[in-house]
Amino acid sequence: MKMIQNEAGRMVPESVNGLKQVPYMGVAKYKPEGYKAKPPIRSCADYPEDGNKIVKNLKEALIKCGIKDGMTISTHHHLRNGDVLTNQLFDVIHSMGIKGIRWFPSASFSCHKHLIPYLEDGTIHHIEGSMNGPLGEFTTYGKMAGVGVLRSHGGRYQAIQDGEVHIDIAVIAAPTADPFGNATGDRGKSACGLLGFALADSEYADKVIVATDNLIPFPCYPWQIQGNNVDYVVEVETLGDPAKIVSGTTEVTKSPDRLLISEYTAQFIEDAGLMKNGFSFQAGSGGTNLAFALYLKERMKAKGVKARFVRGGSTKYLVEMLQEGLTDYILDGQTFDLEGVRSMRENANHVNTSPFTSYNYHGKGNFASIVDIAVLGATEVDVNFNANVVSHTDGLLLHGIGGWQNCMFSKCTILAIPSFRDRIPVILDEVTTLCAPGELVDVIVTERGIAINPLRKDLMKAVKNSSLPIRPIKEIQEEVYRLCGGAPAKPDVDKRKVVAVVKWVDGTLLDSVYQLKK
Amino acid sequence: MKMIQNEAGRMVPESVNGLKQVPYMGVAKYKPEGYKAKPPIRSCADYPEDGNKIVKNLKEALIKCGIKDGMTISTHHHLRNGDVLTNQLFDVIHSMGIKGIRWFPSASFSCHKHLIPYLEDGTIHHIEGSMNGPLGEFTTYGKMAGVGVLRSHGGRYQAIQDGEVHIDIAVIAAPTADPFGNATGDRGKSACGLLGFALADSEYADKVIVATDNLIPFPCYPWQIQGNNVDYVVEVETLGDPAKIVSGTTEVTKSPDRLLISEYTAQFIEDAGLMKNGFSFQAGSGGTNLAFALYLKERMKAKGVKARFVRGGSTKYLVEMLQEGLTDYILDGQTFDLEGVRSMRENANHVNTSPFTSYNYHGKGNFASIVDIAVLGATEVDVNFNANVVSHTDGLLLHGIGGWQNCMFSKCTILAIPSFRDRIPVILDEVTTLCAPGELVDVIVTERGIAINPLRKDLMKAVKNSSLPIRPIKEIQEEVYRLCGGAPAKPDVDKRKVVAVVKWVDGTLLDSVYQLKK
Repeated sequence: MKMIQNEAGRMVPESVNGLKQVPYMGVAKYKPEGYKAKPPIRSCADYPEDGNKIVKNLKEALIKCGIKDGMTISTHHHLRNGDVLTNQLFDVIHSMGIKGIRWFPSASFSCHKHLIPYLEDGTIHHIEGSMNGPLGEFTTYGKMAGVGVLRSHGGRYQAIQDGEVHIDIAVIAAPTADPFGNATGDRGKSACGLLGFALADSEYADKVIVATDNLIPFPCYPWQIQGNNVDYVVEVETLGDPAKIVSGTTEVTKSPDRLLISEYTAQFIEDAGLMKNGFSFQAGSGGTNLAFALYLKERMKAKGVKARFVRGGSTKYLVEMLQEGLTDYILDGQTFDLEGVRSMRENANHVNTSPFTSYNYHGKGNFASIVDIAVLGATEVDVNFNANVVSHTDGLLLHGIGGWQNCMFSKCTILAIPSFRDRIPVILDEVTTLCAPGELVDVIVTERGIAINPLRKDLMKAVKNSSLPIRPIKEIQEEVYRLCGGAPAKPDVDKRKVVAVVKWVDGTLLDSVYQLKK
Repeated sequence: MKMIQNEAGRMVPESVNGLKQVPYMGVAKYKPEGYKAKPPIRSCADYPEDGNKIVKNLKEALIKCGIKDGMTISTHHHLRNGDVLTNQLFDVIHSMGIKGIRWFPSASFSCHKHLIPYLEDGTIHHIEGSMNGPLGEFTTYGKMAGVGVLRSHGGRYQAIQDGEVHIDIAVIAAPTADPFGNATGDRGKSACGLLGFALADSEYADKVIVATDNLIPFPCYPWQIQGNNVDYVVEVETLGDPAKIVSGTTEVTKSPDRLLISEYTAQFIEDAGLMKNGFSFQAGSGGTNLAFALYLKERMKAKGVKARFVRGGSTKYLVEMLQEGLTDYILDGQTFDLEGVRSMRENANHVNTSPFTSYNYHGKGNFASIVDIAVLGATEVDVNFNANVVSHTDGLLLHGIGGWQNCMFSKCTILAIPSFRDRIPVILDEVTTLCAPGELVDVIVTERGIAINPLRKDLMKAVKNSSLPIRPIKEIQEEVYRLCGGAPAKPDVDKRKVVAVVKWVDGTLLDSVYQLKK
């Protein structure tokens, strides 16, 4: 595997799974040329006139799609850790004796450890997509035949749109659908909220299968997935486990340290003058982020400030803000709890978005850079504000990128993170895996102080009279190193063996993940 | 101009405006090959990070789009006869000295007679799109430099999608928009309902300009047009004349003959057993169609029947059906009155659709063939049920195709037409211009009787005990010929001079419109 050093100083392979790669060139430096992917022209003459595209089962649909060895099959992750359909899909593919599939999920979860035997027996050649938990661990130990390719949500849309990844068959889990293939995620026993992660798949795949456990008469509206892009519809007994698809409630952190981080973050936003009428923010669904949203909400109420929009991952906390008139809109990318799903279904101002609208870097702009403040997590940062979100300091690949890279383009990107976890410092000299260049990280908030990127002199100035503990990042690092006994050990990896690569939002290669020696 | 006879027996040119054509091959006979059009890949790096794409005026936007001689510029017709923007657009283009534009509107109206001088002085080379009224007349007399190309709404989407028509610059009139280019037609002083006719333009044009007279802060939601496809946003004082964009009310016919046709049509649907729970229908906005909808509504109420969906062009009459629970959904393609606009804005079950969902024949099915009953008009029919909707018996091209060809694919297509107009019989031996093959026309309802296409033995059987005057079409024709003094004169045309062509839904050439000798 020939390696090249990219503009971030990271070594990346010249080619991945036989495809030549472009090394990362810097933020906004790579200029794409050429044209978008061009799906084949279809004709209504080849589809049922009455709009009924139902076939007997997944196997029949796959046969009609012309499944064969080596194809790329995509799935989406809106069913999260409750996904049963994908496992059943690969049971069927395995039973058909098909080999060498490139599985292209928008993300995989612990529930997909069911697929490890199929990775071992060659049914699946490799995974391109987030590998949360067991599949990431499997990959880090060099057990996957091919190289994993990690992309952000926007990067996945970009890769499909630009023709980097050609999907042969897309399988879309649809909590509600009609026989024509119109589908929505906002209702049905397996309701997951929305289906935006499958949008690109439905638009660009050669063949599209919609599988549903709630078939209703045409028209299924909203049609988050449009039947005009769908080839076959399959009824299944169940898509998954509702309790794991969306949680009944999402929990705010109870850790005093995390609560302090949340409070600092909210105060920073107010003190820096960012919390003003018509502003916008995005926060994730972790316990720290939820607490942050609550603290910010109190500050907004106290000052009589209203947001123009907030971006989800939505939870009941964002829904309450919408209902209380603290924001005009929730622009939602995925719903994390039942209240989020209900609100999306019932409230016209709780809007479902997609990686196309929100994150695709190869569009005519996207929503992410319009957002005033993004509050994100990270597994590690370095003293130059570079950040990691996919691997741990022990070298294990355990998380996907999600929308994290895309959100880096907000006007003020804040990483709200503890200064150490399990006695391992989080602020390092160098991150294990580079997922975002430091120039895009504006602020790091820890329980021990807040570091502002020196590039953001405007923010420095804005908070110079704040009571917040604004500190140089090195000073925080040194304090934590003293507490934890110095820099953590580097993972024991084989630098000749790349097990996965991290793409930047423009499709270039930002970093490599190396095989861990057991 | 070399002419070929197509499968319908009509003579069509081998090439049109320099482009080789495929002659019509029969319904569902032409199988497209190849791939959809592929727009260039863009990068967020080339668009403003804050999402603000506003430029000073139309001229600046056109310059930034790189306008030059011979380009294709598209507009949409949701502003109907109240459109001021398109006229202003061509005033600007004319003032810049640009020549030879192919104007590609989804339709043109009387208000666009303002553009005739630009057709005469070479600013506009020719029009591809419906030419209602004066521009049609202008064309029929051979005054346009190029050949007009008439397409259905679905055919226009198909032509753009398939790359038959490449749009250089799309100009989208947006009654409400944000600086990013998200746009909706359902609100604002120039509200027109929806913007579906501009969807393909926004997706496939090289450059997209959104012009609005109601700029609001991001996000403009609903985003019927997505800002991610938009290059520039222009604020204008006014898009048009609200009273001509949508009428305050739409008028039901008062003609006793037309009322009888409407009543026959409603009774036919009931007697044939088509009016049953979960059924669907589409009817246009003409006075006869409105009356039909009212008669059908009374029958539905009397029998306790509920539709699953009705298709608009919506009017207050369809809105009342939705509000009274007589249908679950209105699937709307355009809104004809203020009540339609209000309902679309306020009622989640009044759904905006596009030519992609509804009509595109080169998709994986479309909605049109799912509809149980379509009630349409026609300028002429022949004894073999072939129909004309664009020209009059005197040879003048005065109407567009609209969704008419697309609706022909409904399960029961009914032409509800008077047997004569101004003493000219409507049922002829041969139509002046062929717009739909007879095999797709199932029933012709006139005030003198109802003719069922002999191909539809099922319908014949279904109404055999009906009190309706079911008659052979020839018998009705003969009666009308006696009344009107025989067959009307053929128009005096120059068969060597094709002034416009009529495309079928699959992009093939169905017929030619010839130059009228003055």
